[in-house]
Amino acid sequence: MPLAALAPAAAQEGARPLQGPVSIERQGSFFVGGRSLHSDTLSTVPAYAPSGTITLDQMYVRFQVPADAGAKRPVVLVHGCCLTGKTWETTPDGRMGWDEVLLRRGHPTYVVDQPWRGRSAAHPSQINAVKAGKAGAEALPAVFAAGREDAWAIFRFGRRFGETFPGMLFPLEAQEEFWRQMVPDWNLALPSPHPTVVGLSALAAQLDGAVLVSHSQSGIFPFQAAASGRQGIAGIVSIEPGACPAADGDLAPYAGLPILVLWGDFVQESPRWAPRLAACRDFARAANAAGGKVEIVVLPEIGISGNSHMLMQDRNSIELADWLVAWIGKNVGERR
Amino acid sequence: MPLAALAPAAAQEGARPLQGPVSIERQGSFFVGGRSLHSDTLSTVPAYAPSGTITLDQMYVRFQVPADAGAKRPVVLVHGCCLTGKTWETTPDGRMGWDEVLLRRGHPTYVVDQPWRGRSAAHPSQINAVKAGKAGAEALPAVFAAGREDAWAIFRFGRRFGETFPGMLFPLEAQEEFWRQMVPDWNLALPSPHPTVVGLSALAAQLDGAVLVSHSQSGIFPFQAAASGRQGIAGIVSIEPGACPAADGDLAPYAGLPILVLWGDFVQESPRWAPRLAACRDFARAANAAGGKVEIVVLPEIGISGNSHMLMQDRNSIELADWLVAWIGKNVGERR
Repeated sequence: MPLAALAPAAAQEGARPLQGPVSIERQGSFFVGGRSLHSDTLSTVPAYAPSGTITLDQMYVRFQVPADAGAKRPVVLVHGCCLTGKTWETTPDGRMGWDEVLLRRGHPTYVVDQPWRGRSAAHPSQINAVKAGKAGAEALPAVFAAGREDAWAIFRFGRRFGETFPGMLFPLEAQEEFWRQMVPDWNLALPSPHPTVVGLSALAAQLDGAVLVSHSQSGIFPFQAAASGRQGIAGIVSIEPGACPAADGDLAPYAGLPILVLWGDFVQESPRWAPRLAACRDFARAANAAGGKVEIVVLPEIGISGNSHMLMQDRNSIELADWLVAWIGKNVGERR
Repeated sequence: MPLAALAPAAAQEGARPLQGPVSIERQGSFFVGGRSLHSDTLSTVPAYAPSGTITLDQMYVRFQVPADAGAKRPVVLVHGCCLTGKTWETTPDGRMGWDEVLLRRGHPTYVVDQPWRGRSAAHPSQINAVKAGKAGAEALPAVFAAGREDAWAIFRFGRRFGETFPGMLFPLEAQEEFWRQMVPDWNLALPSPHPTVVGLSALAAQLDGAVLVSHSQSGIFPFQAAASGRQGIAGIVSIEPGACPAADGDLAPYAGLPILVLWGDFVQESPRWAPRLAACRDFARAANAAGGKVEIVVLPEIGISGNSHMLMQDRNSIELADWLVAWIGKNVGERR
């Protein structure tokens, strides 16, 4: 695995160290989106009234702007299934997360929790309706947890639980810390249009020229945001998306937009992921024929072996972040 | 409201600005605690198996250590009911959160999401057991949302929804952003011993001399952590706790430990909070008679009027943070 081949951004960025103090111009957190909702089944406990108004579908955003951001693009990082914004922070084995690497390379970074997950509120009304006898069990939301036995193959640590692909780079010695990152997933219970898409559109408009980076279950969302309006979207990086847009769909929304669809290793070993990569290739071909700038990068095809589905946490994650920084610099460029 | 009276820490800290870049020595996130758990009702959706192993009861911790921390105490910030670590970040009206004020005053800061909330996984197995017909509705967890009509009086914005206490300092013009912070609360469904207490004990031991700052529903947890072992706990700041330890209980765990119980304004106007303050006064009296160093501070009694239950987000929040920094400096002191 020629890691040296990954070093161009780091070399270009010699003045931006990954060690020692980092200077932050401003940081904080806020929400985008959300709607007020009345419910009569907020609670079944005496201390809180069943009836009232809550806010739902909002998306939590934590941001940091480096002191020397200059004209570097803001980058929005969106996690995938069964995970939260933690995905992009400190890796399970304690190395710097992509959020901080991108920051130290000069990019304002925005890490979100998808609506109904993490610090973005989920909706307990159906649970309480059933508990209170006002609705049947079939009204319960589809909220699922991915057991580690399932997740192992989905994240492509190996073919099945306990087996490891030769040369696979996820830090399995720290897997306990990774399992702690997993949360119940309400994705299948969410309303339409998907609040993450609504939130990404609002956030991009606010940032006025952002790169939207999605992963896995969120992979399609930046495309859907662009399809609903390109305002504020300067580029898309979709890492191992659950789906690319349909090759036979409306491809006009993507014309001229720099798009990277990034894949790790062992994809052909996975009945779950191989067809998705194939469909993304179809999309790229069709989109590019319609004026698109879609690039599919499968890491082993450029000489980088061993990456799992959680490539932002793999042993070479910092080198991959630097590769991405270089890709953004070359293909999206700086702010006007 | 003599805000000038609040300025000593800021004056002492003249070299530590709240504006301009802040230099961070290191930052990141990790989990403490957690246990592996097998379940046969993780999922009712085809894409994820019902049986498997998940990790539960872990506590998410995000931290920042300033470049010039020196011997300043690490501070752990624990949110209250129906909220997450977001409580301590940017205020609803966009001002700097306590997390960053404390950081800029030199304190390493650790912001947590209590187990089963925010980025700390909740437990969907009972929901899926009922959905799958394997258990009756009574098995559903007590997961409630506090409607804003309820929350208004609980947070003491006024006597009832839409009414405001004269001079009340919560930035109500930004209330929509505050309602977005609220999440469903699983607290009543949690196992015993409370995983937040277990997590705080583990985190304090790791930090080796921390000040544990709790709020409202989490108010009692630092006391319970200290009762299970004082290792690593250098001081406790409990802000408007739902409960103090019982005055007639075992008070030995608190002997010699610097403890502040901090209250805002309008407490006597609240049938919910007035008895709790009275009980905390009883606790302080009894604990101090047994060698304790418990201080009850009710802000209007020291000349600071108008604070709500969400005083870390009130208009004078930065001055209050500086007052707290001074209290910690005087009563807990620096690390050895």
